[in-house]
Amino acid sequence: MTEFSFELISSSAESSARRGRLRTRRGEIQTPVFMPVGTQATVKGILPETLKELGTQIILANTYHLFLRPGHDLVRDLGGVHGFMNWDRPILTDSGGFQVFSLSDLRKITEEGVLFQSHLNGARHHMTPELSVAVQEALGADILMAFDECIPFPADRSYAADATERSTRWALRSKRARTPGNGSALFGIIQGSMYTDLRAKSAADLVELDFEGYAVGGLSVGEGDALMYDMMEFTLPLLPADRPRYVMGIGTPENLVEAVFRGADMFDCVLPTRNARNGVLFTSSGRLSIKQSRYTRDPSPIDESCSCYVCRHYSRAYLRHLYLCNEILSSVLNTHHNLHYYHNLMESIRKAVENDSFAGFRNDFYRRREVPVESN
Amino acid sequence: MTEFSFELISSSAESSARRGRLRTRRGEIQTPVFMPVGTQATVKGILPETLKELGTQIILANTYHLFLRPGHDLVRDLGGVHGFMNWDRPILTDSGGFQVFSLSDLRKITEEGVLFQSHLNGARHHMTPELSVAVQEALGADILMAFDECIPFPADRSYAADATERSTRWALRSKRARTPGNGSALFGIIQGSMYTDLRAKSAADLVELDFEGYAVGGLSVGEGDALMYDMMEFTLPLLPADRPRYVMGIGTPENLVEAVFRGADMFDCVLPTRNARNGVLFTSSGRLSIKQSRYTRDPSPIDESCSCYVCRHYSRAYLRHLYLCNEILSSVLNTHHNLHYYHNLMESIRKAVENDSFAGFRNDFYRRREVPVESN
Repeated sequence: MTEFSFELISSSAESSARRGRLRTRRGEIQTPVFMPVGTQATVKGILPETLKELGTQIILANTYHLFLRPGHDLVRDLGGVHGFMNWDRPILTDSGGFQVFSLSDLRKITEEGVLFQSHLNGARHHMTPELSVAVQEALGADILMAFDECIPFPADRSYAADATERSTRWALRSKRARTPGNGSALFGIIQGSMYTDLRAKSAADLVELDFEGYAVGGLSVGEGDALMYDMMEFTLPLLPADRPRYVMGIGTPENLVEAVFRGADMFDCVLPTRNARNGVLFTSSGRLSIKQSRYTRDPSPIDESCSCYVCRHYSRAYLRHLYLCNEILSSVLNTHHNLHYYHNLMESIRKAVENDSFAGFRNDFYRRREVPVESN
Repeated sequence: MTEFSFELISSSAESSARRGRLRTRRGEIQTPVFMPVGTQATVKGILPETLKELGTQIILANTYHLFLRPGHDLVRDLGGVHGFMNWDRPILTDSGGFQVFSLSDLRKITEEGVLFQSHLNGARHHMTPELSVAVQEALGADILMAFDECIPFPADRSYAADATERSTRWALRSKRARTPGNGSALFGIIQGSMYTDLRAKSAADLVELDFEGYAVGGLSVGEGDALMYDMMEFTLPLLPADRPRYVMGIGTPENLVEAVFRGADMFDCVLPTRNARNGVLFTSSGRLSIKQSRYTRDPSPIDESCSCYVCRHYSRAYLRHLYLCNEILSSVLNTHHNLHYYHNLMESIRKAVENDSFAGFRNDFYRRREVPVESN
């Protein structure tokens, strides 16, 4: 059994950017890394084999969704999420906290946990740190997240302080609930809303508890990019340099570049896959909305500089046609391209950090976006 | 430029089954052949590369749909359906007749053609044999179908006779409208509803007009399998043995076996792809509805005897989960399996005819279905 470990390969002299390697029981992960979201044990619209071809190193699965449907016992009996969905690379599961707070009805928070009703059928459930860990272990996660309370934005200081302290106590309970020695890892999640002193306290308390990695949670909840970057810039340096740092739920290509610049290693977001289904495509010069009439007869690929399967074989005109016809292949091809874009971006970021040229990379990244793609 | 041709390789001594080879300007097609339907320049839920891996030799594209959206001029300018959708094997286009009669509003039939309103936006169009051929040529079809009037079932004799005669006159006009010498083929379509004398007249008249192939149209319109088989049995022997015979719009696996038994060479149907999206899967022992609760924790593949990618990697439990979650991969994986089933069935049929063992194959085919899959 490979023990979970993290190794810093190189760091940038001109920024806080880091290049690292995670070792997990299901193989290595080069960081900085973007994790596509496979909410219901499938990354929407894309086969596991294709994910591998695109360079996906690890995916995220959602504890809340799989707990409700089909149920973690069933998933465990069918080989965990890995066997169930035919994915043999690492999987990170979230704690379920975010969805309990964003999707379910009738939440009641106590010290013990959260009482909530399923968004699917109204059934009542009681999620606790212990149950969250048990579910994540049944799902077969290689990286588990401590159960936490996701604080909405804005939040008043008193509630934010209470919730943050409670998340710390839940993090300790999550840690105690783990099955030791199976090679998986458990990450703690820094909360604190947008209050730097609460962030500092949360980070100090969690570092004291000694997790295999640390996440910055409670960002990208409506606070805006500037405040989010400030929070990263404040929080990330408080975390031990020898542990992976995961900024949860981001984001745009710009968000990823800025987070790496500030020292983050791991990211997840539904943006590339959800945008794909809505016909919004990422390119080196910005976003493109494929439904626009300007693409009706456009024979060019999504992005002339992209080498992906979609850009090699399909025109904007065809992709627009598929989108307007609500064809399945619209989602399939758009998802393929967007994930290629994200993984290619991360690959470029990793190379730039390795070569200590990340500041230059970041300048180029923005320069290419000065001419919006829509006016090309 | 390869001229279109058809060659009979072998025929069955014990039935009317035939094994043949079509030569088209885009490559050879081994018959009997099943053609997946790519209505809107995409076979729903499956990539062209995957179609090839599954053994798809030729697909059907729908003239009516592509005429309305995105328009045949646009498709022509983007490389025809082949270039537009990235498919380099042969394409057969229907004449648009069937959809004009089944989908559009306010149809008015005259000798000149059919006035109809688009089911998409109500726009008025006038489809004629000449326009149908022009559209099919703009789409880049390798096999074109003569414009015909699809007769609903039941139809009184007088209307059926008029419509059949009109289709014959439209077939002649379709033939005259063709651009000669481009290597494509034009097939005539036998109509006549369920009246044998009208079928005989239609066949004789069309054979007199000398088409590169002949289709039996107006079947599988609600007449039931027994009457449909009677009509095939009556009509197919009236067609020249040295031309391909295409039974349009069928069908179930049983329909295909029975049509081959009666001497048909080509088929198309939305059944494998549409059923897939509805969670109905084909197996060697019959159909299986994946949503049934009996499959909730079933670790076995759709069909133990199937070698397809889906059956090698995914359980019924997972496929049921995807279906219940309305996930894109549900349609993608189910379509993959069903098309594999259909192509594999045709491959087995071709081998059986080659070995002059088709009668035995047909017996085995039904014997395996005696124990319904749902009670396995």
